[in-house]
Amino acid sequence: MSDEPHFRRLALIGVGLIGSSIAWAARRDNLVGEIVCSARTEETRARALELGVVDRAVATSAEAVAGADLVILCTPVGTFGKVAQEIGPHLEPGAIVSDVGSVKKTVVRDVGPHIPDGVHFIPAHPVAGTEQSGPDAGFAELFDQRWCILTPPAGCDPDAQARLAKFWEAMGSRVEIMDAEHHDLVLAITSHVPHLIAYNIVGTADDLEAVTESEVIKYSAGGFRDFTRLAASDPTMWRDVFLNNREAVLEMLGRFSEDLSALQRSIRWADGDALFDLFTRTRTIRRRIIDAGQEVETPDFGRPHGGSDD
Amino acid sequence: MSDEPHFRRLALIGVGLIGSSIAWAARRDNLVGEIVCSARTEETRARALELGVVDRAVATSAEAVAGADLVILCTPVGTFGKVAQEIGPHLEPGAIVSDVGSVKKTVVRDVGPHIPDGVHFIPAHPVAGTEQSGPDAGFAELFDQRWCILTPPAGCDPDAQARLAKFWEAMGSRVEIMDAEHHDLVLAITSHVPHLIAYNIVGTADDLEAVTESEVIKYSAGGFRDFTRLAASDPTMWRDVFLNNREAVLEMLGRFSEDLSALQRSIRWADGDALFDLFTRTRTIRRRIIDAGQEVETPDFGRPHGGSDD
Repeated sequence: MSDEPHFRRLALIGVGLIGSSIAWAARRDNLVGEIVCSARTEETRARALELGVVDRAVATSAEAVAGADLVILCTPVGTFGKVAQEIGPHLEPGAIVSDVGSVKKTVVRDVGPHIPDGVHFIPAHPVAGTEQSGPDAGFAELFDQRWCILTPPAGCDPDAQARLAKFWEAMGSRVEIMDAEHHDLVLAITSHVPHLIAYNIVGTADDLEAVTESEVIKYSAGGFRDFTRLAASDPTMWRDVFLNNREAVLEMLGRFSEDLSALQRSIRWADGDALFDLFTRTRTIRRRIIDAGQEVETPDFGRPHGGSDD
Repeated sequence: MSDEPHFRRLALIGVGLIGSSIAWAARRDNLVGEIVCSARTEETRARALELGVVDRAVATSAEAVAGADLVILCTPVGTFGKVAQEIGPHLEPGAIVSDVGSVKKTVVRDVGPHIPDGVHFIPAHPVAGTEQSGPDAGFAELFDQRWCILTPPAGCDPDAQARLAKFWEAMGSRVEIMDAEHHDLVLAITSHVPHLIAYNIVGTADDLEAVTESEVIKYSAGGFRDFTRLAASDPTMWRDVFLNNREAVLEMLGRFSEDLSALQRSIRWADGDALFDLFTRTRTIRRRIIDAGQEVETPDFGRPHGGSDD
């Protein structure tokens, strides 16, 4: 069994950063017999073939899923309803349909109704990525030691769930099972609000009159540049995330703003002790993230200092 | 001249990340004859000597500056008034007194009055650092290709200013001259507010009841972990920064919050176009920061993926 591919044919709907990384990881670990992807543009299909990411690249998701025993939606979550409608009639009995969307409640709502009986629908979210996008951005190691969250609906087939979990584990991931609603709340604070804040401060800096953009760029090593990484993430994907996780994002954003107001007040009234207490408390969390294998130990993310790369 | 040290004796008041990095860089480039540091605790003095960062380590700043032709204050900015008062009577005629503080207006106010005639006072701020602190954190390459801002007061001796600029350039920095007030405004957006936001979101996440700290840590690779680096910076240093750049920080924070409210409203009312427009605009700035040599090109800050370091 261990030498056998876990799936006969993998269909990737979309072949961007995550789709192409799944393809590379699945090939590396010999997990699938064949990989087919669909992509809207001829350019992306040609590029995916040229890179050798997939065996076949087709224009429609309906074509892609024909004969596939594992289907993974890797397009922005805003497209999922339409994609599900298109593929529904073409899915093989016994196939598993999954996704990689960063929100899960609306995925259940948008995709679920289009999945026919006898096909297993198991939403998933690999918590991994970089700020780059497109088929060129993918690499096999992206999921190594990162968590992949499955949010199986009630009544989900345990064998299908176990097969999908095994697939992700074989790609290097650790797998966690979670309720879709709780997933969206957890990711709002660990991913969505951080991205929103990063986008926001980069926008604020860009709009200043008293400080030039050239100054922002020159002195960005003071801390600002860290935020520009998240703020360089794919705009379509992130628009869809915020439109599809509105409640949880607004809830977490409310708390963030409330805390920021308190901090602002501490600065205005020169409450050094309140500042010092917070700044001391926050150090511990990074230490725990490093200990949990979710962050590098080296200072400054291991950015090179000195030399031509810096 | 090029083989000669630029200064006979360098006195470092404090030997943390920046102080020890100056010492390493000055030694690497043979810029000083002797390095003396002062540190409050016996432990820090012993460690600095053990590491070989300095030639001598003394307990008081008054002792450290005796006979020095270059004095650099490397303690948190909140200590500067007291330090200046202590060293004032012991400064050598013709010496240059500088600092590395992240704010400049209050440094001029707190230090300036204690500098005797015939001693050159030239505030400076190397825009470089990591999240680590203490004498062990320093390294010679920290300033390579980073900007060092000098804010010479009116009437500053041009030769002294040129010597200090040359010293920083020899350590790998690019040097810019700026007005202290403008410096504080520029750094508020490129450094101080980013740190405040990072501290704030880590605090918010730490306080949640619906999401456990263990969940925050596990799924931090979704974006949150990027913020924990700045939020692990030295608490005393950053408390002093906010207490000493109150006006500019509150001004920039006001703009940030205003923009965040607008973004919050876009999410509430599902204005996808507004989100998409901002998310597209912010991509350009990172590109320009990379092109300006202030950020690495490689995805994810060049963090290793896969393998034991990840």
